Amino acid sequence: MSTPGAQSGQGEHSRRGAAAAAAQAGTRLDPWFSSYADRAHGMRASEVRSLFAVANRPEVVSLAGGMPNIDGLPLEHLAEMTAKLLRERGTKALQYGGGQGEEELREQIVEVMRYDHVAAHPDDVVVTTGSQQALDLVTEIFINPGDVVVAEAPSYVGALGVFRAYQADVVHVPMDDHGLIPDELERTLTELERAGRRVKFLYTVPNFHNPAGVSMALERRPQVVEVCRRHHVLILEDNPYGLLGFDADPLPALKSYDPDGVVYLGSFSKTFAPGYRVGWAAAPHAVREKLVLASESAILSPTMMGQLSVATYLANFDWYGQVKEYRQMYRERRDAMLGALAEYLPEARWTVPDGGFYTWVTLPEGLDAQAMLPRAVTNLVAYVSGTAFYADGQGHDHMRLSFCYPTPERIREGVRRLSTVVRAEAELVTMFGTPPTARRGDAVEIPSPDQV
Amino acid sequence: MSTPGAQSGQGEHSRRGAAAAAAQAGTRLDPWFSSYADRAHGMRASEVRSLFAVANRPEVVSLAGGMPNIDGLPLEHLAEMTAKLLRERGTKALQYGGGQGEEELREQIVEVMRYDHVAAHPDDVVVTTGSQQALDLVTEIFINPGDVVVAEAPSYVGALGVFRAYQADVVHVPMDDHGLIPDELERTLTELERAGRRVKFLYTVPNFHNPAGVSMALERRPQVVEVCRRHHVLILEDNPYGLLGFDADPLPALKSYDPDGVVYLGSFSKTFAPGYRVGWAAAPHAVREKLVLASESAILSPTMMGQLSVATYLANFDWYGQVKEYRQMYRERRDAMLGALAEYLPEARWTVPDGGFYTWVTLPEGLDAQAMLPRAVTNLVAYVSGTAFYADGQGHDHMRLSFCYPTPERIREGVRRLSTVVRAEAELVTMFGTPPTARRGDAVEIPSPDQV
Repeated sequence: MSTPGAQSGQGEHSRRGAAAAAAQAGTRLDPWFSSYADRAHGMRASEVRSLFAVANRPEVVSLAGGMPNIDGLPLEHLAEMTAKLLRERGTKALQYGGGQGEEELREQIVEVMRYDHVAAHPDDVVVTTGSQQALDLVTEIFINPGDVVVAEAPSYVGALGVFRAYQADVVHVPMDDHGLIPDELERTLTELERAGRRVKFLYTVPNFHNPAGVSMALERRPQVVEVCRRHHVLILEDNPYGLLGFDADPLPALKSYDPDGVVYLGSFSKTFAPGYRVGWAAAPHAVREKLVLASESAILSPTMMGQLSVATYLANFDWYGQVKEYRQMYRERRDAMLGALAEYLPEARWTVPDGGFYTWVTLPEGLDAQAMLPRAVTNLVAYVSGTAFYADGQGHDHMRLSFCYPTPERIREGVRRLSTVVRAEAELVTMFGTPPTARRGDAVEIPSPDQV
Repeated sequence: MSTPGAQSGQGEHSRRGAAAAAAQAGTRLDPWFSSYADRAHGMRASEVRSLFAVANRPEVVSLAGGMPNIDGLPLEHLAEMTAKLLRERGTKALQYGGGQGEEELREQIVEVMRYDHVAAHPDDVVVTTGSQQALDLVTEIFINPGDVVVAEAPSYVGALGVFRAYQADVVHVPMDDHGLIPDELERTLTELERAGRRVKFLYTVPNFHNPAGVSMALERRPQVVEVCRRHHVLILEDNPYGLLGFDADPLPALKSYDPDGVVYLGSFSKTFAPGYRVGWAAAPHAVREKLVLASESAILSPTMMGQLSVATYLANFDWYGQVKEYRQMYRERRDAMLGALAEYLPEARWTVPDGGFYTWVTLPEGLDAQAMLPRAVTNLVAYVSGTAFYADGQGHDHMRLSFCYPTPERIREGVRRLSTVVRAEAELVTMFGTPPTARRGDAVEIPSPDQV
């Protein structure tokens, strides 16, 4: 909720008068306005939320959402498997479990991480309510207000929301087509150290980056690990898309280079299904211990029904075959997206993702993705403005386009619509100059699940 | 994790030397020891955790746990219902949902709350990962470090853990057999106001209190609401057991007296099953808005599979008939517990619960429940020491006994074993005086899910 505007009085007491009036107005609208914690006063919905309510109408092609396409899931198999689970182990599946998560599932998670070259022990794994909760818990146990989180420029909007909710300062480090740039990381950490800032961790999405669509090159991975080790900065490696590479096997995770220096976050939301809300963190031993305590305080225990459903699916179905089908489907959609961009929007630039859900588009000079969004939605196409992915106001010249959910035909149609909006906008800019855009405040903009 | 002990040096530098040595020792055991947030340094497992690992052995009668007994659930019906859900609505059930929770379920939650005389709108409801997450979210949006939460003496251990994780100061208000005492609440709030303390909310479990086993009398409910309204203190009403009364229909919730002054927390864990992790908060409008934002930041969205499973069960099964069966089962266990206490432990006192899971036992003079616990576990019976339910070190003369999970025969056997421990302990006390007990520090003791 934003603070309602207040009429300023005149004279020397005007500022105090305005604050008092605002507080009074807040209290009128919300009887608990004066009771919130400092962190909550900054929480407000992102400005584009109401727009996304519109964007979810069926006539709008949404290139905004990060929802996986799960039409290919073996529903009949899942129905039988789940019925059997309830019949045979129902009183376990419907009961509370331990705060760390079921050992049966943690053992399977260790196997899943082997694809990323991670050698972990089930004791190192904490099962969470999606990897989003793991992100929240890591931030909770490490961040005091004013601590620094170093993150790629751009970064996952849902992570930025968490960091700001815990009142961290996010400092961005540049990327290129090969991911985070180790020299820039070194420079940034050195500068922060000189400035006496406390850097708690590096947040990075090395594979098929959200939103940038690029991956960290193999040779950079040990370099990034080495830079962080030298500066004693923990790495928070977020890897929801790692198994969804289109052309090659997964690259080694950062955690494979330094198990004690990296907390690795994984998720079944993109390789299986988001509806169970099952993700995990694999952490150094002492960190894992704190994550479990923080999670028990927050939710007591993760859903046993969801955990055993995932465990049963992994044990009884060719889940990696399903992942391969997902890859094929997303590759076709990526191809449709890149083909349509080349055909309809040659004046823009974009990254070429080898996996995952997103491409990152740079608009022609002078265009502002945030200002253009309402007109795009009016023209029945939606995207996420690049501004959502920075903590420091950058990103107006970028947009994130996702190719995960709509069909290839809809993707082409969406990009075509987008191109007419971009052309019209470019004409306006030529005639009247760049339009003013809404200023970003210091408030925590929480993305809606449609946007992540 | 507790800070490892350090050798003190001699002379004027000894304290600084000890702190440095402790930090060094911490760093040796945990490379990230110096990186944690302030809130995390205090998080440690409760001392009795390792004991509870023992207490979970089948030969031990555990009167400690708060796990519902779900043996009576209609597993065959649930199996068929869930298979149908996956076949017919699988791509919805397995997808992300909105952060506030599914409207279909929120409408049913409104109907469930009618039993408590609450008239709410589905827009006021936020679905959470068990009501524990709702507790965490409310505390997150209201509590700055040092703010006061007023809570019954004793209070739910899982709530105390959350309050301390957010660095709240908990101030207890006495109860009697009719629940929280309004005059004591008035006195406490007035004193805190005079002392200039900022009281953010009253946390209360009005029905079948955990751990006290008592309910707030009907005539006290409007009084408590009125006291809080006069002091402009929000009420956090936690009601997981409300429908599990043995003898009468539920009393009106505090929220029914003042919808804008109360955040009501509900759960399906005790009336249906905990394994889905589906609970909720019903909040005043502006508070609800912040709860949704905080929840989206923490977990994106609650499990759709869990939500639709609960919604389908509520819609297609005589769920209230199942609740009545639960009542009957728990009543028999309560009777077994009270009968065994009268037979084996007449020298103790205990509350007589009209519902829920717990009775609160006062030990004979001089006995210490915390000190006695290891000996009880050695004698194959477990309970939770009263000290777990206070933030201020009280409770040594109390224990919580739960009658929810074991059979009536096991309950009787457990109380019999307990009585032999109490007798032996009383003899020791007579001979050697009250034994010294472990001092409580300021650390946040996180209960294991077995203890809640």
